Amino acid sequence: MNEGANDALYKVRHSAAHLLAQAVGELYPGVKYAIGPPIEDGFYYDFDLPEPLGEGDFERIEAKMREFATQDLALERSELSREEAKVLLANLGQPYKVELIDDIPDEEAISFYRQGDWADLCRGPHVPSTGHLKHFKLLHTAGAYWRGSEKNKMLTRIYGTAWESQADLDDYLNRLEEAKKRDHRVLGRELGLFMFSQDVGAGLPLWLPKGAMLRDTLVDFMKNEQLKRGYLPVVTPHIGNKRLYMKSGHLKNYNTKIFPLMEGSEDETYVLKPMNCPHHIMIYANELRSYRDLPVRLAEFGTVYRYEQTGELTGMLRVRGFTHDDSHLFVTPEQLEDEFRYVIDLMLFTLKRLGLHDYRVRVGVRDPKDDKYIGSDENWEAAQRAIINSVESLGMDYEISVGDAAFYGPKLDLMVRDALRREWQMGTVQVDYNLPERFELEYVGEDGQRHRPIMIHRAPFGSLDRMIGLLVEHYAGAFPFWLAPQQVSLIPIADRHVGYAKEVQERLRVAGFRAATDGRNEKMGKRIREAEMQKVPVMLVMGDRDIENGTVSVRRRGEGDLGAKTVEEAIALFGEWRDAP
Amino acid sequence: MNEGANDALYKVRHSAAHLLAQAVGELYPGVKYAIGPPIEDGFYYDFDLPEPLGEGDFERIEAKMREFATQDLALERSELSREEAKVLLANLGQPYKVELIDDIPDEEAISFYRQGDWADLCRGPHVPSTGHLKHFKLLHTAGAYWRGSEKNKMLTRIYGTAWESQADLDDYLNRLEEAKKRDHRVLGRELGLFMFSQDVGAGLPLWLPKGAMLRDTLVDFMKNEQLKRGYLPVVTPHIGNKRLYMKSGHLKNYNTKIFPLMEGSEDETYVLKPMNCPHHIMIYANELRSYRDLPVRLAEFGTVYRYEQTGELTGMLRVRGFTHDDSHLFVTPEQLEDEFRYVIDLMLFTLKRLGLHDYRVRVGVRDPKDDKYIGSDENWEAAQRAIINSVESLGMDYEISVGDAAFYGPKLDLMVRDALRREWQMGTVQVDYNLPERFELEYVGEDGQRHRPIMIHRAPFGSLDRMIGLLVEHYAGAFPFWLAPQQVSLIPIADRHVGYAKEVQERLRVAGFRAATDGRNEKMGKRIREAEMQKVPVMLVMGDRDIENGTVSVRRRGEGDLGAKTVEEAIALFGEWRDAP
Repeated sequence: MNEGANDALYKVRHSAAHLLAQAVGELYPGVKYAIGPPIEDGFYYDFDLPEPLGEGDFERIEAKMREFATQDLALERSELSREEAKVLLANLGQPYKVELIDDIPDEEAISFYRQGDWADLCRGPHVPSTGHLKHFKLLHTAGAYWRGSEKNKMLTRIYGTAWESQADLDDYLNRLEEAKKRDHRVLGRELGLFMFSQDVGAGLPLWLPKGAMLRDTLVDFMKNEQLKRGYLPVVTPHIGNKRLYMKSGHLKNYNTKIFPLMEGSEDETYVLKPMNCPHHIMIYANELRSYRDLPVRLAEFGTVYRYEQTGELTGMLRVRGFTHDDSHLFVTPEQLEDEFRYVIDLMLFTLKRLGLHDYRVRVGVRDPKDDKYIGSDENWEAAQRAIINSVESLGMDYEISVGDAAFYGPKLDLMVRDALRREWQMGTVQVDYNLPERFELEYVGEDGQRHRPIMIHRAPFGSLDRMIGLLVEHYAGAFPFWLAPQQVSLIPIADRHVGYAKEVQERLRVAGFRAATDGRNEKMGKRIREAEMQKVPVMLVMGDRDIENGTVSVRRRGEGDLGAKTVEEAIALFGEWRDAP
Repeated sequence: MNEGANDALYKVRHSAAHLLAQAVGELYPGVKYAIGPPIEDGFYYDFDLPEPLGEGDFERIEAKMREFATQDLALERSELSREEAKVLLANLGQPYKVELIDDIPDEEAISFYRQGDWADLCRGPHVPSTGHLKHFKLLHTAGAYWRGSEKNKMLTRIYGTAWESQADLDDYLNRLEEAKKRDHRVLGRELGLFMFSQDVGAGLPLWLPKGAMLRDTLVDFMKNEQLKRGYLPVVTPHIGNKRLYMKSGHLKNYNTKIFPLMEGSEDETYVLKPMNCPHHIMIYANELRSYRDLPVRLAEFGTVYRYEQTGELTGMLRVRGFTHDDSHLFVTPEQLEDEFRYVIDLMLFTLKRLGLHDYRVRVGVRDPKDDKYIGSDENWEAAQRAIINSVESLGMDYEISVGDAAFYGPKLDLMVRDALRREWQMGTVQVDYNLPERFELEYVGEDGQRHRPIMIHRAPFGSLDRMIGLLVEHYAGAFPFWLAPQQVSLIPIADRHVGYAKEVQERLRVAGFRAATDGRNEKMGKRIREAEMQKVPVMLVMGDRDIENGTVSVRRRGEGDLGAKTVEEAIALFGEWRDAP
């Protein structure tokens, strides 16, 4: 939740959380309150309940909330001393709130907000009275540990949403409904994109033929674009000797995300790679580079493995194995700004091609008060200036996020909103002074001396797997023509037209289109419906007259029947659709 | 060594081994003899020597061999009883020979071959006299354990070659010399194809930009060909739960080749995959298949890892990580023969495209006397008949190798000879009844009943990495136009022509050709020489007149200067060269 962005909504959601807590207090006497913040699109409240509660209880809780709202109770702020507040909350049997008081900085007042005969320890701000809360809905429950720690008690979290108008609420609930339908896990199965197998392992996707085709299309797009832009492809193993990761620091700093080691004989312990950087560094360091060779842009579609908690795995959003469209650029300090701009240009080009037009730019810089950062002030200033200059020179809006830099350098994130206005963090560009230092990388400068290059890590898709998850939901599985795993379904009207369909299919294949013939002995209507269900963008129906005239009858998703075209005309049309921006 | 194929050469090499042993006996009194067989292109003899011997000693050993050859000593066969032979050899201080007698089957005679005052326990046959041995040469030494076991003493093995004529010997020595120059490990480094890194690990190649380009070209070729032939691409993780490999039997039967396990919490132990079959089986089993869906041909360029002994790793010939152009076909028994033929057709098409025209076909069938094979006699008969029928229907020669089948099914190997007439075992097709059984795979037949499919494993390249090793040596790094990582080098005569060169380069890129501009401030002759050293097949030189006329001056490797062409003409020409068979 971006607090500054929308104060009114913030207050509505914050107060709705109080309204929920008041209603729960009325219905479940003895409940202990934990915390209840506003969040993006809504709010939640965590309760330690005297009896279990489920979504079946929402109706009566909402009724009680509406009852208090109708009473239009004023929300009144009051202050107590730290000690008074603790005694009061202890007497009320609210141990979590007592604990929370200790978190409030000394210089801050201890404030309460009261509505009717109910009050909550709270910093505010809030709406003036409960009458302002008309457009809310409880959504679902979840378990949540007190203070997020497994060592503490599991509380019941109730999620809700609240808006300023009924129209906004309806719109949001529609989007939620739509999001459920678009769930990439459901569509991924229905469209035959990917599967999981317990015998392979949790969070390890197996890409089915249509999903593999989609991957290939994205990879080919990026490979082609990268070759055009002077990237050099490399291919590296999925494992590396433990030594490599001790040198890179990953074994120490990234240990919890690394799969259990493969421990062989002495000096023969292998790590399943969590990232591609150390391998690319070995390639950079394989020869002495001159400033004339830089920037060196090594690119790999590298599959990496991270040992995420099984409980945190969700579809393609959090997996244990995924493919990075990874590249590491080795640049001189003078090249940093231009190269950064060139990277952003590729990332924006990519988003445009993917039809993701709604995004914002976040520049993560260091927090000058924190001492976790390595490298000289001068380097940090130069790198942050290079990023900001490059963004500004492209005329882009951006926001600065202080403290969001990695310990080894500043970065830029692209936050993408999909068709349902949900935000996904996608591509990242990261400046790195640390790894070149650790691996003592060098190049010979124009002065004949050895210098240290700067590394840029970048991935326009980020994770290929996650990007496909996003695209599935963004398009609800109905991919644009160029991306669709199957672009064309050929539907011969009768058995005697199957041969002709196969001929047309082969001509389409040679022309570079992905087509398949559905020559099953089923009613044409059924076959058309199935192609629609599979979200195939184009259908070509063909019968006697088509064979005679060398034509096909073209139906395009969203446009309907476009009439008979010769095969040449159809191919030309497909070419336009494929290349359309 | 194929004994039957060339008896005369077999005898020459066998007798040359005796000649070597006689000479060593003369020069190193007290030497103990082990074994000395003829092998492909030569022979060796293993000695337990009283003092060390190196290649520096070859000259005087060869002189002694020639001395005995000039004496034209007759090789005379004689027989002894088993006991007499043992006593004689023990008295001569030849313990290895005494051991060897125990290996000779009871029904076989114990024979010796004598030449002058030297004799060897030997089955023969041999040339009539040492005068027939004129064209031989000792090559190198190696350590070899007695009976190949590390538990026994390390002996000194001397390798040599012997031929029927001086011309044959010279030709062979030239080929050896040429092979050294073509060594893919040396050329791989010189041409910037791949590297190894101790910090990544032995036997784990890192593919440099030009090598990655070569891989991409091969992969694109195969992907395209496979799509045309109805294969379905899939992508699977590089690890799998231990359960998967217990079910497949690999953990038991293939244990020594598997990397150390990644042992996580209970039920969370992972295996770095040594092959792709179990993953593809999970995909097949993900839905109920009908006979109408079969054959299902799942294809993946799957990188697999095998924990070979570090001592056995050699360049790309024996690595620990490599990429299979792997596919698993699930077929009905009725489809087996047709599908097998279709696979062979793809393999031959592939070899032709790669310019490998010299190969032989070996069909591995079961040894009826051995009981290691699983599955019914009926299935074995049907599968072996299907393989042989499909080979014969393609009009191909083949040889049957009894006992060369895997325990789970018969197979076909393609043995490829490269330009230096060395044989490489490349593609394999393998019929498998075992894995469908273990994983209880099914399809619904035309009769509505569940049936078990048969699997075919196949890989036309075999290992992509090994295939590139072979191609580097076959072509001595000078790849045909379609395969060359860099196809065209653009050489602007002077600085002022660099802009034009870059324009032409971009037009070539758009047309699908891999070109780079060498605009360095170096003499043109030097830049041309370097492009030649890098085996770039085409150079385009350009100056003032070319800019004026929109032309380039084309030089093709092996053809020299082809004169000025317009860029369109050059592109058309390149298209012809690329598509040329």
